[in-house]
Amino acid sequence: MPRLRLALAQLNPVVGDLVGNADRIVDAARRARDAGAELLATPEMALSGYPIEDLAAQPSFLRDASAAVPTLAARLQAEGLGDLAVVVGHPDGPHDPRATGARNAPTAIAQNCASVLGGGEVIGRYVKHHLPNYGVFDEYRVFIPENELLVVEVAGCRVAVLICEDIWLDDGPVARVADTDAELLLVVNASPFERDKDEVRLPLATRRAREAGIPLAYVNLVGGQDDLVFDGDSFVVAPDGAVLARAAQFEEDLLLVDLELPVRAAPDSRRDRSPQPASSPPSARSPQEDADHDREQIWSALVLGLRDYVEKNRFGSVVLGLSGGIDSSVCAAIAADAIGADRVYGVSMPSRWSSAGSRSDADDLAERIGLHYEVEPIADLVQPFEDQLGLTGVAAENVQARARGVILMAKSNQAGHLVLTTGNKTELAVGYSTIYGDSAGGFAPIKDVPKTLVWEIARWRNAAAEARGETPPIPENSITKPPSAELRPDQTDQDTLPPYEVLDEILDRYITRRLGREDIVAEGFDAVTVDFVAGLVDRAEWKRRQGAIGPKISGMAFGRDRRLPITVHRTP
Amino acid sequence: MPRLRLALAQLNPVVGDLVGNADRIVDAARRARDAGAELLATPEMALSGYPIEDLAAQPSFLRDASAAVPTLAARLQAEGLGDLAVVVGHPDGPHDPRATGARNAPTAIAQNCASVLGGGEVIGRYVKHHLPNYGVFDEYRVFIPENELLVVEVAGCRVAVLICEDIWLDDGPVARVADTDAELLLVVNASPFERDKDEVRLPLATRRAREAGIPLAYVNLVGGQDDLVFDGDSFVVAPDGAVLARAAQFEEDLLLVDLELPVRAAPDSRRDRSPQPASSPPSARSPQEDADHDREQIWSALVLGLRDYVEKNRFGSVVLGLSGGIDSSVCAAIAADAIGADRVYGVSMPSRWSSAGSRSDADDLAERIGLHYEVEPIADLVQPFEDQLGLTGVAAENVQARARGVILMAKSNQAGHLVLTTGNKTELAVGYSTIYGDSAGGFAPIKDVPKTLVWEIARWRNAAAEARGETPPIPENSITKPPSAELRPDQTDQDTLPPYEVLDEILDRYITRRLGREDIVAEGFDAVTVDFVAGLVDRAEWKRRQGAIGPKISGMAFGRDRRLPITVHRTP
Repeated sequence: MPRLRLALAQLNPVVGDLVGNADRIVDAARRARDAGAELLATPEMALSGYPIEDLAAQPSFLRDASAAVPTLAARLQAEGLGDLAVVVGHPDGPHDPRATGARNAPTAIAQNCASVLGGGEVIGRYVKHHLPNYGVFDEYRVFIPENELLVVEVAGCRVAVLICEDIWLDDGPVARVADTDAELLLVVNASPFERDKDEVRLPLATRRAREAGIPLAYVNLVGGQDDLVFDGDSFVVAPDGAVLARAAQFEEDLLLVDLELPVRAAPDSRRDRSPQPASSPPSARSPQEDADHDREQIWSALVLGLRDYVEKNRFGSVVLGLSGGIDSSVCAAIAADAIGADRVYGVSMPSRWSSAGSRSDADDLAERIGLHYEVEPIADLVQPFEDQLGLTGVAAENVQARARGVILMAKSNQAGHLVLTTGNKTELAVGYSTIYGDSAGGFAPIKDVPKTLVWEIARWRNAAAEARGETPPIPENSITKPPSAELRPDQTDQDTLPPYEVLDEILDRYITRRLGREDIVAEGFDAVTVDFVAGLVDRAEWKRRQGAIGPKISGMAFGRDRRLPITVHRTP
Repeated sequence: MPRLRLALAQLNPVVGDLVGNADRIVDAARRARDAGAELLATPEMALSGYPIEDLAAQPSFLRDASAAVPTLAARLQAEGLGDLAVVVGHPDGPHDPRATGARNAPTAIAQNCASVLGGGEVIGRYVKHHLPNYGVFDEYRVFIPENELLVVEVAGCRVAVLICEDIWLDDGPVARVADTDAELLLVVNASPFERDKDEVRLPLATRRAREAGIPLAYVNLVGGQDDLVFDGDSFVVAPDGAVLARAAQFEEDLLLVDLELPVRAAPDSRRDRSPQPASSPPSARSPQEDADHDREQIWSALVLGLRDYVEKNRFGSVVLGLSGGIDSSVCAAIAADAIGADRVYGVSMPSRWSSAGSRSDADDLAERIGLHYEVEPIADLVQPFEDQLGLTGVAAENVQARARGVILMAKSNQAGHLVLTTGNKTELAVGYSTIYGDSAGGFAPIKDVPKTLVWEIARWRNAAAEARGETPPIPENSITKPPSAELRPDQTDQDTLPPYEVLDEILDRYITRRLGREDIVAEGFDAVTVDFVAGLVDRAEWKRRQGAIGPKISGMAFGRDRRLPITVHRTP
């Protein structure tokens, strides 16, 4: 019975960096060959990074990317790695857009391919069949699908290759794979993290392995790319649901597994058996363990998203304002976990309305984390604006927030810091922020984290520190005190907004679940509050459009996930 | 021979406003019936506005929109307009997304329909066949196509209905229409303005009329919707290329035309004849007339785009900084043309580096246009920041620009003005602006106008004023002096950037034509300059993402037309 040593390279490529990504693949190939592997699989678009967006409509980029594939094959051969079969994801083109759904498109576009390299040659090529075109995905815009299967022989084993979305459809190509002589189904992916997605992918892949009647190897990208975080979590699952191997989540990994092939089951023969994976399924955890797992995944995604934005864009450091509140405290803790406290610069910018408690909470945070810390009072900066312009009310409040934005941007100009903006998803949803003020910055670490969840991940992070015998990074007082923007005396968020527990429930329905106002009221919420909140959300779209990007962790993040007009009149 | 009096209603709906848009349609129906029309056609999505973007994924909105169609039919009947056949564009749904290319989409989506109303009923429905999914269009994301033709009888005439993209494809449904007994091809559209598009649409429609062998009536939306401007320019063209009627461009219109049907020609029988339209084709104009026509169209598009953003979002007034330079002068003139000088507030914000000439140019502009004018020197606002933070160099320059942003936003907070940001496309391309400074604002009137074209439309606008015996709005000195940001002594833009004539040529190739660096160098540009410019463009993506929207006038506007990653390493 043939034995196949398979390596799954959970890589973290940089979009556009064809040379650097080829180096990453060659390095993985060398490690895989040194470990005795016969087949190395890399993720979807490992050679170009993903998503390449409209780079797929630049003929010169596509020519370079296409040429890089045979070049990589020849290089692997030249470096003595020609005996290893390498599956590499890449874009191919340019192709004529008239062949596609985007038939009137003005320029050439691409195909989303997985090529098999071996012996210095490209020995097989698969083109993705099914193109996701919802949520954050725009694949109909830039890719041409095909409909051909690929089964290649590697070390005496027959391997079928599919790409990502191909296995998400019930009437996708898996059934056709079952009709071939393939002994292993290899799926290469660029599947971004969302809460609970790990609990969807493995059962789905298990079902497909059962349908195909052969083991399924799933290799995913890892790393942050703008607003997406790829979480890796690659695995190999047998048709009976046994998880044969599983890679780390949120870090690069090279997963090795020996397969005695065929592990063939008649397709669908186990349909009556429970498809429980061997790894601990959600139901095996207590509710508290489930919650901790959720918080840990979110925290890891936020850390990886920020780290890769900083490193891939070559920032040396980050700077953020520290108010003593929960949002900036959590962002500082994420930043320290991402790039180390010695690369994090915190600035306390008290105004005449800042409480002594806020200042001491910010001091406490800075000391707990060990970040660089400065205090820049804003009173003397704000007063000239108030005097010259005669400002009162909201105009005066906003000038305070904008003076802080100017300070942070000036420090960025002076020292090259990336400015972090610390707004949470609830704030973005209802527009509870000052544009060009506290919203100023290049990256927004918690923009997809609702306020109630900010508190939860703060508590989780502190508990995790305690469990390791470390100092909890976030001051308890920042978690427990009533939230306030402190732009006027004795202000709290709840002067203006419904309680966050209610607000986040309404926002989840209006934004994530896309319910209408009447539908939300029918679920038991107060009609006046629902109208008020929905109106705030609609009117804040112009601010969100000008907001910094930040990592998506939910099923519906602001940004390309949710595309709504600024100018809109909603009939009540 | 049956005679049909046809009315094309070039409407300006508001996205989402099902009630208000139905009122607009009923009003047009009344005017059409009073003028003796038997058939009224409204544009694509006239009932919902266009584009509705992800409103098409909100079940409650789709239910409301779908219900609004029979309600409108009944209302037309109740108001005595039931004898008039009305073709109304609208979304329909919710439908199951599994029926579409977006088969894994999480929620329900829509169809893009044109329904025929008459006698109080919906008597026919057409669903768009071809969905544009390139450029600014995302129709595969939100719509399900169909493949059925619709031919209805109105006043004894057989009328086929198609929607927009359906006629842009050479293998679209027009050939199938030719095989029916249709005597008129009615095409309902939501086709946004781009430079020179009027010179594409009419020849295209003429070709389709010839292919179908029957007259083609083309009705288009008009008005601004966020970053799109619909220019109207509806028309009726006979199969021999005669333009039987043509509506105004850039304004609402009700175009009436009497057709003696059939005006039937054998399909394609005139393929050997020149398809010259009867209206003056581009070649009938002198180069100067061509250039003037181009400038006039652009100006009109910018005026309409700004006016509708202001009015549909219910702003009473706009405010902008006046530097005395060409960009802010042109924006002020556009604003005055759009909403009247009495609703335009200009603020001169001189720094210690502002020349006396700049201040007098700003004064001159304000007087010429007759707008509200104030002077707010920034020296006393900037000095405290410089002193407290120890700012020098770029950090100090940016604080000046940001102090101006704070002033304009404060005035907006005080008086409810919409803040206009006056950056041009060249500036956005290379990042030659201060984020949260001069880029602060809700709308960017000239964001799709390259610097060299800003000068050209300024000259055209002044000449147009002179030809009408009016005061040219833009000071000659603002047009002719060397451009400068005036953030340090004796600064000019060309200290930092290549000459604008060269820069705009490179940008056109890199951005609009999507050429690679080598391709541009091969066209005769200096390699070092091309690399420098392309690098600036790539690195400024994060700023563009946070920029205000503004009207698209080119084939490749920044925004949803051009979707590129922020994080990208380009292999040289």
